[in-house]
Amino acid sequence: MARIGIYGATGYTGFELIKLLVRHPGVAIAFATARSAAGKRLSDVFPTLIDQPLVSVEQADLSSVDLIFTCLPHGAPELVPLIQAALEAGVRVIDFSDTFRLRDPDDYARRRGHPHPAPELLGAAVYGLPELYRAQIREARLVANTGCYPLTAILPLWPLVRAGLIADQTVIVDSKSGVSGAGRSLALKTHFGEAHETFSAYNVGRTHRHLGEMEQETGLHIIFAPHLLPVFRGILSTIYVTLQPGTSLAEVRAAYDVFAAEPFVKLLPAGQLPELRHVQQTMSCVLGLQPVEPEAGRYIIVAAVDNLLKGASGQAVQSMNLMLGFAETTGLV
Amino acid sequence: MARIGIYGATGYTGFELIKLLVRHPGVAIAFATARSAAGKRLSDVFPTLIDQPLVSVEQADLSSVDLIFTCLPHGAPELVPLIQAALEAGVRVIDFSDTFRLRDPDDYARRRGHPHPAPELLGAAVYGLPELYRAQIREARLVANTGCYPLTAILPLWPLVRAGLIADQTVIVDSKSGVSGAGRSLALKTHFGEAHETFSAYNVGRTHRHLGEMEQETGLHIIFAPHLLPVFRGILSTIYVTLQPGTSLAEVRAAYDVFAAEPFVKLLPAGQLPELRHVQQTMSCVLGLQPVEPEAGRYIIVAAVDNLLKGASGQAVQSMNLMLGFAETTGLV
Amino acid sequence: MARIGIYGATGYTGFELIKLLVRHPGVAIAFATARSAAGKRLSDVFPTLIDQPLVSVEQADLSSVDLIFTCLPHGAPELVPLIQAALEAGVRVIDFSDTFRLRDPDDYARRRGHPHPAPELLGAAVYGLPELYRAQIREARLVANTGCYPLTAILPLWPLVRAGLIADQTVIVDSKSGVSGAGRSLALKTHFGEAHETFSAYNVGRTHRHLGEMEQETGLHIIFAPHLLPVFRGILSTIYVTLQPGTSLAEVRAAYDVFAAEPFVKLLPAGQLPELRHVQQTMSCVLGLQPVEPEAGRYIIVAAVDNLLKGASGQAVQSMNLMLGFAETTGLV
Amino acid sequence: MARIGIYGATGYTGFELIKLLVRHPGVAIAFATARSAAGKRLSDVFPTLIDQPLVSVEQADLSSVDLIFTCLPHGAPELVPLIQAALEAGVRVIDFSDTFRLRDPDDYARRRGHPHPAPELLGAAVYGLPELYRAQIREARLVANTGCYPLTAILPLWPLVRAGLIADQTVIVDSKSGVSGAGRSLALKTHFGEAHETFSAYNVGRTHRHLGEMEQETGLHIIFAPHLLPVFRGILSTIYVTLQPGTSLAEVRAAYDVFAAEPFVKLLPAGQLPELRHVQQTMSCVLGLQPVEPEAGRYIIVAAVDNLLKGASGQAVQSMNLMLGFAETTGLV
Repeated sequence: MARIGIYGATGYTGFELIKLLVRHPGVAIAFATARSAAGKRLSDVFPTLIDQPLVSVEQADLSSVDLIFTCLPHGAPELVPLIQAALEAGVRVIDFSDTFRLRDPDDYARRRGHPHPAPELLGAAVYGLPELYRAQIREARLVANTGCYPLTAILPLWPLVRAGLIADQTVIVDSKSGVSGAGRSLALKTHFGEAHETFSAYNVGRTHRHLGEMEQETGLHIIFAPHLLPVFRGILSTIYVTLQPGTSLAEVRAAYDVFAAEPFVKLLPAGQLPELRHVQQTMSCVLGLQPVEPEAGRYIIVAAVDNLLKGASGQAVQSMNLMLGFAETTGLV
Repeated sequence: MARIGIYGATGYTGFELIKLLVRHPGVAIAFATARSAAGKRLSDVFPTLIDQPLVSVEQADLSSVDLIFTCLPHGAPELVPLIQAALEAGVRVIDFSDTFRLRDPDDYARRRGHPHPAPELLGAAVYGLPELYRAQIREARLVANTGCYPLTAILPLWPLVRAGLIADQTVIVDSKSGVSGAGRSLALKTHFGEAHETFSAYNVGRTHRHLGEMEQETGLHIIFAPHLLPVFRGILSTIYVTLQPGTSLAEVRAAYDVFAAEPFVKLLPAGQLPELRHVQQTMSCVLGLQPVEPEAGRYIIVAAVDNLLKGASGQAVQSMNLMLGFAETTGLV
Repeated sequence: MARIGIYGATGYTGFELIKLLVRHPGVAIAFATARSAAGKRLSDVFPTLIDQPLVSVEQADLSSVDLIFTCLPHGAPELVPLIQAALEAGVRVIDFSDTFRLRDPDDYARRRGHPHPAPELLGAAVYGLPELYRAQIREARLVANTGCYPLTAILPLWPLVRAGLIADQTVIVDSKSGVSGAGRSLALKTHFGEAHETFSAYNVGRTHRHLGEMEQETGLHIIFAPHLLPVFRGILSTIYVTLQPGTSLAEVRAAYDVFAAEPFVKLLPAGQLPELRHVQQTMSCVLGLQPVEPEAGRYIIVAAVDNLLKGASGQAVQSMNLMLGFAETTGLV
Repeated sequence: MARIGIYGATGYTGFELIKLLVRHPGVAIAFATARSAAGKRLSDVFPTLIDQPLVSVEQADLSSVDLIFTCLPHGAPELVPLIQAALEAGVRVIDFSDTFRLRDPDDYARRRGHPHPAPELLGAAVYGLPELYRAQIREARLVANTGCYPLTAILPLWPLVRAGLIADQTVIVDSKSGVSGAGRSLALKTHFGEAHETFSAYNVGRTHRHLGEMEQETGLHIIFAPHLLPVFRGILSTIYVTLQPGTSLAEVRAAYDVFAAEPFVKLLPAGQLPELRHVQQTMSCVLGLQPVEPEAGRYIIVAAVDNLLKGASGQAVQSMNLMLGFAETTGLV
């Protein structure tokens, strides 16, 4: 049994991760950390989860584990020192933050407005998207788990780029996310009365922190407009592309043959589009293609995932399976 | 035009109150206070509300108004001094808190565990339920606006008590409230991810702070179980009573004739029960009666109101209309 | 008092219309029709609405009214004969369907795939968008009430077209609508279990029946992707435009000065975007502008309305006010 | 591998059942029936489910299976003949309807108003609640799967009855259910616009069809008020009991020791009450106890389950595991 440590067990991605690990036949949870809930048990916070004690970051013993998941909030100051200590101790790391997703420290600095906090680790980091980096993830010491929004842009766009079908390098990605993507920390924006029975756009254009990885992995120039849905889980992105004029639907569909053997990517038959309820509580990223004006190359692609599973904790377990030599879908179907 | 001051304009009851006052033909808003938003305008907080400047409590000028509404959070330390100052300045007060709802300071002390903060004002206070205290509200200097939960217990039970139909003085009130009842202050319990697509009971039994006024106004012994619904507005209470054995449905219905002329209370025809959507965005308290075992006196009563309108801000305007000599329904239909 | 007839009183737009007319000081409802509920009263269907008897279409007496609203489902066979009879009887008509919105019968035939059912009436019809056709609506015998989706495309785009700022005639309109837009007739798509806690795109591209009026009123070529939100009311559209390169935000904002005196259109300050909750239960269409890459002319516009009020019944009352000589905002604020 | 047939695969309980069976290591689905979707594949109806062909009831081959699940709507005319045919063919049956839950045909006739359709099968039927009838389920040919509402009354009340703690045989069960309990067939009551953002009581008192099994299994006289929550899955019941005066909380808690070894029943620590989100997507029935006035024997019990899992399909798989000799929790954790 591989021994696993979890940092940040009481957030939404932490909860989902633990549910998956409890079902997994090849791993055992060695420790789980929390901030304000340290000293309690996980079942005190959520009664139908396991009785795992919650410890502080300081109490977690890196020598007791083979691999850690870091599910800390964006910008948590303990994150980078923790990852450094783990790697030095020979512990493999799957990090949920966006710290190690951009390969180029200059790109990071330009987009964030401050230098990268640990550029010396970037060489070791692998972008945690198994559909693109399966071989590298197997060997990785540090995996930067893909962001939830980027997943719904990269998986639909990368095959088109690879097939040389994209005519206009500027692509519009209009994304709609459930509120769980904003985490479990309190904010007026995610207060029930402000997030329920409503809908809004935020950080639209070129400013969202997830834009960098979308552009890095696709090589495209992306206009990105995220929106907040009044649902808990799931992301659906509507993508407007201009392909080579006259590209037929069959040619577009053929580009996705690259995913034919993927266990967690599904292209719907022509005429069908994904809905959030199809992917919620599943590991599937479901794609649908809609020709608009094929003679002008205009197509719409719709992609849907469960942001907490394929978009976060499930994808992390998929990477863990690769790293630890399990079958890739173990504990995920 | 009567001049009105509003304390606590940026909470949910404040928003609703302002929407009503803007439509009202006989009043003008002289000032509106806020805490963290003081210095902004109301339209900065909610774009389709009016451009009213938001001032701090200290900046509000009591000499500029005839009547104030105090919509402050429970236990706000500025509340009692504010009401004292207003009354001394000859300004009439409609208070949304539960500070002045119990007439007996000993009852208050016993239920709250601490003495009443201003017992000398209790004599001046009128319980703000127009259906029971219309004449007194007209003359009142200080109106203690009825609580939202109590409304859904008192309006259905008081006619039965008055008619002498109650056999068992212990009555069960199982209430379900929308989340807006918990206000706009941040709390984990009202975080979207914890309040959405779920349902829970809380403070069940004999502990809820609204129990006192229910018992004061009905004279009954009430077992009260409030629950939190994943909706924004509305309260529906299911009430289990044991009446005199053999009481017919016609006799029960006749007890409610006392409300026949009430503009905002409606008893549904036999066989119909209210739903939240019937009362949301309205001033109506809708009641339905269901005989269970009439031979044993067992009946179920269902009552529904919009907690922000008839259960709070609308009822306050109803009282204001009485106090200022307007027709009681002005601005409310 | 003007005498009003309503066809289709028990659908969602019918409910909203009746709520507005009841509050309106200058009109009286003469009749209201329903299909399966004919013979009942409106309060049997919705207890807090008025006690209005519901009659069949055949029982409705056109000689008793000055103006009718036809709120029938799309494609109702009784619609066109009804409108013809009303116009012949000298009764003015505000029609909620999309039958008379396109001015050109050939455009209608091309988009629908069948000839227009009453081309002889098209000359009399006025497109019911007061912000564009105020003078014509005043005199109109037949008003074709604007569609809900089109409103959220025309109001934000028309000022830019008028100001000559549009560089790329192809515009992407990504719209998200509450479920009430699909009406009260039963369908699996609007069954609670299929529409709740989910999100989906439908009829994306060039196929939606509302596309024609958007293009007619703006002169643009529109890629339109509607989506179904798990909320009851409201539409928010995210619009991607390419303006003349280098257009400044100030220039874009100035184009909207044409709406400066409009009571129901509001442009938010720079940096703010509308949310559905801002417009629900209001008559406001709220707009927000976001520069993306102004040097390349890329802007995003977000528009939000309540689809049942400004997007349907409220707008119809706004037109009625113009037709009957009331102040335009009577009964709407 | 045991061979399984499913009747009624495209309802909500059918979907959940198939998700569970696909994960189960010891069974294979031999056929799945549907009405209007016969001839399609399950993935045509729900894209992330398996590609199982859907056949009509007539096409299903009983000789190919060891056990069938009948997930048909209440009152489906094909149900009883189907079960008779299966039992004659030596196929074991787990039936989701309430046809075989009452042991006494006279009780059935009295409560339903018509005679039992197959009284000769009642002797073979076992009430499908493993916590009470584990041994009998192992041997059963016909299991009548427990209703969802009854589960939330029987599991909390039966231990108190067994321990002799109940003083007043009349017990109030105020239940709140997600909309999935009403199934996937279209009805105005479950239309999004009528079920969303609202709350209502229905069939309150002594009339609900689930009352019989609650009373049969507990021996109590139950006042039952079901309500419809605007959520998809889950039932929470608030139960008002009068125990022997002076019963201590410790004595009440001790009564639940009978469930100490149960894998799917959990009594929360004192002071905690269950919430729907704790049990959604799980097999747990979670119970909480609240003393109200222990000296008078007044207690409130709150019980929560996922109506589609422990309340329907999951419980059916639990029974299947017992019948086929698998570990009871196989495929359920």
